[in-house]
Amino acid sequence: MINQQYKKMLEGKSVIRELSEFAAARGGEIGYENVFDYSLGNPSVPVPERFAEVMRGLLGSRSSMELHGYSPSLGIASVKERIAASLNERFGMNYTANHIFPTSGAAGALAHAIRCVSAPGDEILTFAPYFPEYGPYVNMTGAVLRAVPADTESFQINFDRLEEMLSGRTAAVLLNTPNNPSGAVYSAQTLTRLGELLRKKQEQYGHDIFILSDEPYREIVFENVEAPYVSKFYDNTLSCYSYSKSLSLPGERIGYVAVNPGCTDAELISAMCGQISRGIGHNCPASIIQLAVSQVLDITSDMSAYETNRNLLYGELTELGFSCVKPGGTFYIFPKALEEDAVAFCKKALKYDLVLVPSDTFGLPGYFRMAYCIDTEKVERSLSALRRFVKEEY
Amino acid sequence: MINQQYKKMLEGKSVIRELSEFAAARGGEIGYENVFDYSLGNPSVPVPERFAEVMRGLLGSRSSMELHGYSPSLGIASVKERIAASLNERFGMNYTANHIFPTSGAAGALAHAIRCVSAPGDEILTFAPYFPEYGPYVNMTGAVLRAVPADTESFQINFDRLEEMLSGRTAAVLLNTPNNPSGAVYSAQTLTRLGELLRKKQEQYGHDIFILSDEPYREIVFENVEAPYVSKFYDNTLSCYSYSKSLSLPGERIGYVAVNPGCTDAELISAMCGQISRGIGHNCPASIIQLAVSQVLDITSDMSAYETNRNLLYGELTELGFSCVKPGGTFYIFPKALEEDAVAFCKKALKYDLVLVPSDTFGLPGYFRMAYCIDTEKVERSLSALRRFVKEEY
Repeated sequence: MINQQYKKMLEGKSVIRELSEFAAARGGEIGYENVFDYSLGNPSVPVPERFAEVMRGLLGSRSSMELHGYSPSLGIASVKERIAASLNERFGMNYTANHIFPTSGAAGALAHAIRCVSAPGDEILTFAPYFPEYGPYVNMTGAVLRAVPADTESFQINFDRLEEMLSGRTAAVLLNTPNNPSGAVYSAQTLTRLGELLRKKQEQYGHDIFILSDEPYREIVFENVEAPYVSKFYDNTLSCYSYSKSLSLPGERIGYVAVNPGCTDAELISAMCGQISRGIGHNCPASIIQLAVSQVLDITSDMSAYETNRNLLYGELTELGFSCVKPGGTFYIFPKALEEDAVAFCKKALKYDLVLVPSDTFGLPGYFRMAYCIDTEKVERSLSALRRFVKEEY
Repeated sequence: MINQQYKKMLEGKSVIRELSEFAAARGGEIGYENVFDYSLGNPSVPVPERFAEVMRGLLGSRSSMELHGYSPSLGIASVKERIAASLNERFGMNYTANHIFPTSGAAGALAHAIRCVSAPGDEILTFAPYFPEYGPYVNMTGAVLRAVPADTESFQINFDRLEEMLSGRTAAVLLNTPNNPSGAVYSAQTLTRLGELLRKKQEQYGHDIFILSDEPYREIVFENVEAPYVSKFYDNTLSCYSYSKSLSLPGERIGYVAVNPGCTDAELISAMCGQISRGIGHNCPASIIQLAVSQVLDITSDMSAYETNRNLLYGELTELGFSCVKPGGTFYIFPKALEEDAVAFCKKALKYDLVLVPSDTFGLPGYFRMAYCIDTEKVERSLSALRRFVKEEY
């Protein structure tokens, strides 16, 4: 019989989807170039040309079996070795290939990591504002996601509330830095304090509490901003990565889980992920994509446009009187709305062809997110619409 | 804390893996070309040259965003349209794009299809001998896999035992034709009878019973063998496909669920799969692979070698006195062992550098599987080893 739980999920509203649909429809009326669509976090800068060269090179030089044949369920060895070496070099870690588990994007990485460290009924804490998909990612495993209220000063971590919510039921803390939607980058001070708190709690409760570090924006960090590598601060860390943002490859579904060699059962986790894969339909990420990505590990798309856009928007927004934490990374900015009801605020913005996402979706009311992974030229044109919106409505 | 269920799974033995490891080690001693490794079902014929041409064409002609950007979570529209059109043309179905859900191989397809039609505690029946991964695929969702004992005459369906095992708890029947490991192809007569029985049972129990048709070997069918399209015989069918075998692309993880337009909630199933994806870490299969495959839908690798190999082996085995159902498709053959203990039989075969898989893994003792997706030249050389094995040991 048709599974009723999944059928019921179809009734769920999706504010982001509705906004995107508005943007598309409005684009049909006035031309999409005239819609200031800040709704979706789709990388707008092209894939490095080197990636296409590498793909062509593979197609021309490797055998069919090597390129497209079944690859090992725990990932292609050379790919894992290269990823480990790259992370060790950049962040001073000591990963071996056995600590790297290639996955189908960060969604695939989290699907495995969550299952490695929790069981149905366990709690996983995350920090508002947070990526809404963490809800189904966690809850659909049978674990329970709970959001620690935001530190609205700086969008770092609200440690008082975190400490209140940690308990013997806590299996893990799921964090995202640089952060979607706030653009905040957790400081070394934040991470140090978090590590100390969790070590204290592990002792108090007598069981492991893991950090699941979701870090697809790790390379989108702006000038003079330090983005420390989370796993250096806490042994029981599984780092979940995706090349979607750094290489503009979201459609190719390629990322990994990196297991801190100092964590509990570190030598078994990759193999456990292989077992988890059997139950959730992942054999491995596409083999040619694994091979290609492994050859471009230390380059990224040209992301300077993101910083340019951030500067334009942060400048304009603050000038217009918005209260806003200056993003240290990502392509998001998260100002406070000019009225308490952010949904109403964003609805008014639509009249000016500004498509903004109200923050309620992210577990914190009263703010809005702008995804500025769009052409700088369009950001520039949008500023006057922003001015008119504020002037006429507020 | 580390999930103990997944950790325990690491203790599981895998006969197939151990045999493969033996083959590799022995190959190290005498050269792998001298090991008659019939253990693994990895396609041995190359990907059609057209596929590489298509990939190069895409890399050269499409924009970065189009090739590698986020693709719709329900699959790329043009890809779904082409797949639907191809299936309609070949099998006289009436799929629309909305009935096609692209997935990460057949494993991905089954992970979604099983969850669409069952809930934890439900039973899913399959037919011995069966692909052992059906165990974790089903059981790790909370549903329970039960195997209907084999029809050892022809490896079609044992209807008496099936009817005994069907009950109000049955959510679905999971079948695989052409079949791994037996090589049998279900006849129109079998499928007609199955359809009639399930319709009768649906009425009796007052709920849907689905057929999940796992059909990655659909195109590996030998001369003069009819391989009817399962979905034509029963409306409540979800067909799970993968290009791994027909296009020799197992590493690229590309397949789909095809929803019979006449099944219950047919218009909702693709969207339900999109919801299921959120909980198991699948956003979509790699976009460039979707696009490439959609342009080579109606060609296959040159699979004539599989039929040549089948003829060589079937001829030799029957001459040597093995009792064997002649495979109608796949690259497997499944003879009865020459002693009751197939594990002992296969162990003896190793002395002749013959790597055969005992059938216990497939839910039926006393047989063995040979995967003849290897060079014809090696099959020929193996025949004398087969002869010596039989002569000296039995």
